[in-house]
Amino acid sequence: MNIEDKILAGDKIACARLISMLENNEKEAEEILKKLYEKTGNAYVIGVTGSPGAGKSTLTDKMAKKLREKGFKIGILAIDPTSPFTGGAILGDRIRMTDLILDEGVFIRSMGTRGNLGGLSKATSSAIKVLDIFGCDYIFIETVGVGQSEIDIVKMADTVVMVLTPNMGDDIQAIKAGTMEIADVFAINKSDLDGADKTKFEIEMNLDLNENTDFRPKVIKVSALKNKDIDILLDAVLEHKDYQMRTGNFEKRRIDNVKQEVLDLVKENLINLIMKKAVENDLLNKLAKEVYARKKDPYTAKEELINLLLN
Amino acid sequence: MNIEDKILAGDKIACARLISMLENNEKEAEEILKKLYEKTGNAYVIGVTGSPGAGKSTLTDKMAKKLREKGFKIGILAIDPTSPFTGGAILGDRIRMTDLILDEGVFIRSMGTRGNLGGLSKATSSAIKVLDIFGCDYIFIETVGVGQSEIDIVKMADTVVMVLTPNMGDDIQAIKAGTMEIADVFAINKSDLDGADKTKFEIEMNLDLNENTDFRPKVIKVSALKNKDIDILLDAVLEHKDYQMRTGNFEKRRIDNVKQEVLDLVKENLINLIMKKAVENDLLNKLAKEVYARKKDPYTAKEELINLLLN
Repeated sequence: MNIEDKILAGDKIACARLISMLENNEKEAEEILKKLYEKTGNAYVIGVTGSPGAGKSTLTDKMAKKLREKGFKIGILAIDPTSPFTGGAILGDRIRMTDLILDEGVFIRSMGTRGNLGGLSKATSSAIKVLDIFGCDYIFIETVGVGQSEIDIVKMADTVVMVLTPNMGDDIQAIKAGTMEIADVFAINKSDLDGADKTKFEIEMNLDLNENTDFRPKVIKVSALKNKDIDILLDAVLEHKDYQMRTGNFEKRRIDNVKQEVLDLVKENLINLIMKKAVENDLLNKLAKEVYARKKDPYTAKEELINLLLN
Repeated sequence: MNIEDKILAGDKIACARLISMLENNEKEAEEILKKLYEKTGNAYVIGVTGSPGAGKSTLTDKMAKKLREKGFKIGILAIDPTSPFTGGAILGDRIRMTDLILDEGVFIRSMGTRGNLGGLSKATSSAIKVLDIFGCDYIFIETVGVGQSEIDIVKMADTVVMVLTPNMGDDIQAIKAGTMEIADVFAINKSDLDGADKTKFEIEMNLDLNENTDFRPKVIKVSALKNKDIDILLDAVLEHKDYQMRTGNFEKRRIDNVKQEVLDLVKENLINLIMKKAVENDLLNKLAKEVYARKKDPYTAKEELINLLLN
C-alpha cells in the first residue's frame, strides 16, 4: 500500500510520516497533498491560545477527551516555536503526559520551527490538511499567543479559544495588545484561584466596548486540572461553530484563509525562483556588494532581480 | 528648496516628513531615497533590545547624551509595535520625557506598525537611510526583544546591545530562547539592585559555552537612571565597532543585510504585481472559492497565479 492509501485507511504512522515530509519541504509530499486535497473539508479546526503556563495543553486534552467520548476522531497540533538562533525550543522540550497518546482515535503532534516561523505556518497548514484527510472530525491547534507569526497560525482556526488565568499581569497585557479580538471564546482556567471573577469581569467589560461584531464571545470559568466545567466550555465552542455555519462566516473565514495561504505559496515560490536564478548568475552577491559600495541603490537592485525573473 | 536639499541642509522637519512619506509607502518618497542613496554609509547603527521595563529608553538617552558631548549627531528610532488588530500601541503611547528632544543635534522618532510588522521592518530600514543622509553619526534603534519580526529589525544594527535587569525571570527566558546570540554587548541595567552579579555570572557562564565566535561580548553593569557607568558601556560598544571594522565583519554583516533588504523588496513588489493582476481579473477571489469548494487544490491555484505573472 502506498502512503496515500495508508492514510485513508487510518494508519497513524503513515500520517506522521507525511507530516514530517511536509515539514522537510519534500516535493513528493506536496504532490501527495495535491492528489488528496479533495478529501479535505470535513474537519473543524479549534485554536487554543494563551500565555505560557495558562494551561493550554491540559485544557486541550480535556476538551479532546470529551469529544472522544462522543465518538469523534481528534487531531492535536502543538505548535512549539524554536529559537531562530539556536534551534532549541523556547518552551523547553515538552513531553506530553497524557493517556490520549494511547488512544487510536487521537493523533498528537508537536510542530517545531527549525528556525523558520514562516515555515511553521506553512507546515501547520499542511498538517491540518493531512489530519483532515486522515479523518479527524476536530483538530486542535495549540499556540502561545505572542508574536505576529503565532497569531497568523491561530487565525487558521475556525474557532479560537483564548485561555487566561486569574490575576496574571499577562492577561491584561494581552487585552491591551488587542489579541482579544481574535478570541471567539474565552476560557478562564484555574478558576478556583482568587481573582477569577475579577478577570471575567474585566474581559466582559472589554467586550462591552467592542460594538463591531454581531457575535459576543462567551467567557467561561473552568479548571482543566480538576476537569471542571469543560463541557460548558465545549458547548460555547460548539455554539460559536453553529453561529459561524448559520451565518456563512465559516465559509467567509475559510476563503480568506485560502487567499492568504495561496499568496504565501506564491511568495515562497517566486522567491525560490528568484534565488535560483540569482545564485546561478551570482547576481544577488554582486548586487549586494554594489549596493554596499553605493554604486547602486537597493531599489534599482530590486528591479534588476525582478527583471531577471520576468524576462 | 525641495525636500532633498532641506534634509541635506539639516532640516529636522523635512527629515520627519520624508520618514512619514516612507511609512505611508508613497512612491515619491522611494524616488527621493533612490536619488539620495549615495549619500548614505556614514552612520553607525546601534541596536538596543531587551524586555519591556528593562530601561532601554533611558539607557539609549544616556548613551546618546555621552555621544552628543563628543560632538556627534544622533538619531533615535524607537520601534513601537502596534497590535495587528486594533492598531493601538502594545506598549501604550510613549511620550519620551527627555531633554534630548530640544537638542538640534538629536533626531528622535517613534516607529509604529499600523498593523503590518513586515511594513515596520521596511519603514525602519528606510528611516535609517534618511537619518544617515541627514548626517547622523550614530543611529540607535530601540526594540522590545520579542518575536521574529522584532529580531529581524534589531539585526539591522551594526552593534546590538541587549539590556537585562537583575533577577528577572524574563532574562533567563531570553537566554533560553537563544536571543543571547544576537547580542554584541550585554548591559545589566538597574545594577544597584540585588542579583546584578548573579545575572552577570549567568550570562558569562552562557558565553563560556559559546565557542563559535571570535568575539566575546562584554557584560557591563550600569544604572541608566543614576547615569552610572554609561561611559564604560559605550566603550564596550565602540570596542565592538572597532573589532567589526578591523575584521571586515562590519562589511560582511552590512552586505548580508542588503541581501535581505533587496529580497524583501523583491517579495513585496512581486506580491503587489500579482495582487494587481489577480484583482483586475478577480482571479484571487475566484481561485479561493474554487479551492474552498475542493474543485481545485491550493498548489494548482498558486501555479495559476504565478503563470499569470510570468506570462
